[in-house]
Amino acid sequence: MKRIAIDMDEVIADALSECLQRYNAEFNRGLTKQDLIGKNIADLAPAEHRPRLRSYFDDEQFFRDLPVMEGSQEVIEDLMARYDVFIASAAMEVPCSFGPKFEWLRRHFPFLPPDNIVFCGDKSIVAADFLIDDSVYQLERFRGEGILFSTPRNVYETKYRRVDNWPEVRELFLAGAGVSAPGRRR
Amino acid sequence: MKRIAIDMDEVIADALSECLQRYNAEFNRGLTKQDLIGKNIADLAPAEHRPRLRSYFDDEQFFRDLPVMEGSQEVIEDLMARYDVFIASAAMEVPCSFGPKFEWLRRHFPFLPPDNIVFCGDKSIVAADFLIDDSVYQLERFRGEGILFSTPRNVYETKYRRVDNWPEVRELFLAGAGVSAPGRRR
Repeated sequence: MKRIAIDMDEVIADALSECLQRYNAEFNRGLTKQDLIGKNIADLAPAEHRPRLRSYFDDEQFFRDLPVMEGSQEVIEDLMARYDVFIASAAMEVPCSFGPKFEWLRRHFPFLPPDNIVFCGDKSIVAADFLIDDSVYQLERFRGEGILFSTPRNVYETKYRRVDNWPEVRELFLAGAGVSAPGRRR
Repeated sequence: MKRIAIDMDEVIADALSECLQRYNAEFNRGLTKQDLIGKNIADLAPAEHRPRLRSYFDDEQFFRDLPVMEGSQEVIEDLMARYDVFIASAAMEVPCSFGPKFEWLRRHFPFLPPDNIVFCGDKSIVAADFLIDDSVYQLERFRGEGILFSTPRNVYETKYRRVDNWPEVRELFLAGAGVSAPGRRR
């Protein structure tokens, strides 16, 4: 069975919406995802706001109630019938997120065994055939085939096969011969 | 550069001593590591003690002050000059251990970048050339070459190349052509 590793933030967990909401509320701004095409929030924030922006991730509460990306639960459950599915999050950047991320996964993806969860830093350590991730930094390190999950920041990236949403992940991995090495039960 | 992944409990962190100490103190027993040759503590504990034994791992304090296995710090620092070294712990079994394990590594192995830490469940997800681990269960899953680190429970295992201690790890990986695919800087 081929193995698919799947990132968390911006792929199954909508951390960007939470970040925008906190930033807009704190600084009385009205930034939207549209404003972030090709950019990070920090690119649109005055220098004096940036320490506060960074501090949002030091609050473990940030990770507790993130919205689930639409369609991710149904598609992942269906993928598990044909692929070995792991969730791989670069949680080492934010040690306070370990517990909340684990609980979030147990709550929203109860069908995924805890043994199939990985908290790492550099995703070159992930042994899988595919990695679905919004981070070009991580896809460059990964040793299998990288699939770029669209997020406003990465829209100009052209190096990787791209999926815009979970129906497109379903189409790529479950509808036919979309992937270069289609998963088949051995 | 070849990559070595290294387990935590019983390899760099002496969790067994802590477990024995708690068990002996609570039940007024005198079990030693010698008594555990080929066995788990649970094999030597009456059934009514076992829930308490399991509960030790639900106490995050358990993981905070574990003794460092002798020689592991010096040898790992030296390995890092010739190998890409990751710490890979099956922490998903004990979610309360994430934070304490991370802090323990930062305190006792400050030279190891956090990006080189992995908390996982099933070590088949670890992409490395070698895995040094006391668990045959994990070595069976790992896709590279498994090196069995001796612990009382595993002394009768014969399927893997064995190291008894950290000087033997040094000998195997740094003294010459001991490993089947010796690490060389590219």
